[in-house]
Amino acid sequence: MKLASLKSGRDGQLIVVSKDLGRAVSAAKVATTLQQALDDWHNIEAALCSLYEQLNKGVLTESFAFNPSQCAAPLPRAYHWVDGSAYVSHVELVRKARGAELPESFWHDPLVYMGASDAFIGPCDDIEVACEEWGIDFEAEVVVVTDDVPAGTSREAAKGHIKLLGLVNDVSLRNLIAGELAKQFGFYQSKPWTSFSPVLVTPDELGEAWDGCKLSLPLRATLNGRLIGAPNAGVDMTFDFPTLIEHCAKTRSLMTGTVIGSGTVSNVGSKEGSCCLAELRCLETIAQGKPSTPFMSFGDRIEIEMLDAAGESIFGKIDQRVVQSIL
Amino acid sequence: MKLASLKSGRDGQLIVVSKDLGRAVSAAKVATTLQQALDDWHNIEAALCSLYEQLNKGVLTESFAFNPSQCAAPLPRAYHWVDGSAYVSHVELVRKARGAELPESFWHDPLVYMGASDAFIGPCDDIEVACEEWGIDFEAEVVVVTDDVPAGTSREAAKGHIKLLGLVNDVSLRNLIAGELAKQFGFYQSKPWTSFSPVLVTPDELGEAWDGCKLSLPLRATLNGRLIGAPNAGVDMTFDFPTLIEHCAKTRSLMTGTVIGSGTVSNVGSKEGSCCLAELRCLETIAQGKPSTPFMSFGDRIEIEMLDAAGESIFGKIDQRVVQSIL
Repeated sequence: MKLASLKSGRDGQLIVVSKDLGRAVSAAKVATTLQQALDDWHNIEAALCSLYEQLNKGVLTESFAFNPSQCAAPLPRAYHWVDGSAYVSHVELVRKARGAELPESFWHDPLVYMGASDAFIGPCDDIEVACEEWGIDFEAEVVVVTDDVPAGTSREAAKGHIKLLGLVNDVSLRNLIAGELAKQFGFYQSKPWTSFSPVLVTPDELGEAWDGCKLSLPLRATLNGRLIGAPNAGVDMTFDFPTLIEHCAKTRSLMTGTVIGSGTVSNVGSKEGSCCLAELRCLETIAQGKPSTPFMSFGDRIEIEMLDAAGESIFGKIDQRVVQSIL
Repeated sequence: MKLASLKSGRDGQLIVVSKDLGRAVSAAKVATTLQQALDDWHNIEAALCSLYEQLNKGVLTESFAFNPSQCAAPLPRAYHWVDGSAYVSHVELVRKARGAELPESFWHDPLVYMGASDAFIGPCDDIEVACEEWGIDFEAEVVVVTDDVPAGTSREAAKGHIKLLGLVNDVSLRNLIAGELAKQFGFYQSKPWTSFSPVLVTPDELGEAWDGCKLSLPLRATLNGRLIGAPNAGVDMTFDFPTLIEHCAKTRSLMTGTVIGSGTVSNVGSKEGSCCLAELRCLETIAQGKPSTPFMSFGDRIEIEMLDAAGESIFGKIDQRVVQSIL
């Protein structure tokens, strides 16, 4: 099943989207918003699936053409957004570029931070930033959305709590990060916006690419028409999603609709390229002593997408431009 | 005006509470939940105020006795919870106790972290923690709730965005904090629960104690019947609420219902005592070489309250026990 939210009010209007992303139908008779569906997922999922089956069969006369540019984030606002840094070799590379050692514990103890979830932005929304000097970067990631996860949930039990998957662009202001991390309280100003793929999908949509823990397909990030990278999200993921969930639920429960991110997808050696400019700039620094690729400028276009084995888009495309916000 | 939420579903049921906290009335004909009211605050506030006036006059036959133990947090789940550390002398003291210097920038650059907002707990709810060894502590704080705050809002303009004030107990697991802060990504497992005062109030309820920036009254924290402290929340607050809002809105907008906390209230010298055990233990460490007050144990009772100049409770009392969660 594939789900999206049309722009409408603060929480969007839930729609069911066909497998080929061509058609959509309102889910209003089942649930008005995705959060509402998640709040009662075990009762609502079957009715949404039924709509999805009918939509794919082409028997719904009320269906309409699916247009990602009319979409908000599937969850336009959420109650919990925790982003991991699950590809530890990426963290190691970033540290190497600045001559710092990676603590050994980073390979065993997941790194996560709490992100801003009150205003997720849509797949085609502009990325509004006031200053280019803040060092604007994209981060292409995979996310999962959970139902209610009790405190103390084990990794094994966590697998059953993954209800939806999607892609995000976790916009980062690189030149604000160092100062914030030095204060040890985590990211705040340096992580302004997170945009989502047009649709979230249930795990059964992913076939063999999803083993319940990792999504083993390339994640494509394209800047101004140039492919920056397409690393495989199932490769070199030090902490898989159930492990991240277990970590997040260690001392408290997670409420339904919690969004958990993988962090920038990255493969050791970066042979297939990178899912953020920071990694590319680190590679350049290690090779040439300094970075040659600049961060993003106003007007730049970033596209993020994942194709299945047949070359079809699974989640639709994140396709955004960076624009200067007017303060 | 004073607002609370009775326990009901995931978002509670909005009620208006009388000035003396004695009576309440359902707000259902105006807004079902507090988030719903905040989503359209400029249209809804007047109708809620009207109910409040009638309730205080005693003319509402449908009113009922207000019982804080039936309350959820006023916002049982929120989209954005950012907690400051606005009393910098507290941070300085904590560092002094472990022999560390406070960076000079901490006096000019606000310290904030993103907290878990998907499950705020009620004023009389148990604090469920799995292990006493995690070092269970309370933190008594003042919070404000904003409406929509545009990116780049100035400190001066921020004042007008403060719609509600309240108290919180930001439960902290002290023995998990050092490890998390060392990773620089902020608190996660170490900040499991935040509980709220029974009611939130509009700024006009606070009279001269509220100057639009700081709330100048003692915040009382009582552990097992012993007053741990009653520092004045308007004294030694390095970053007032409009300054915190300006900081938080520097790179993005904040959506209505954003909760912004002061951090543990603390006065230089701690003559009126402390609003968390960590501060008390730091004072003991500086004076005696080691702390003598233990962190909280299962069964401990924590009460947090603020009284007005006439000795009346403004927000009602946070009154909780620590219990062992069953995993």
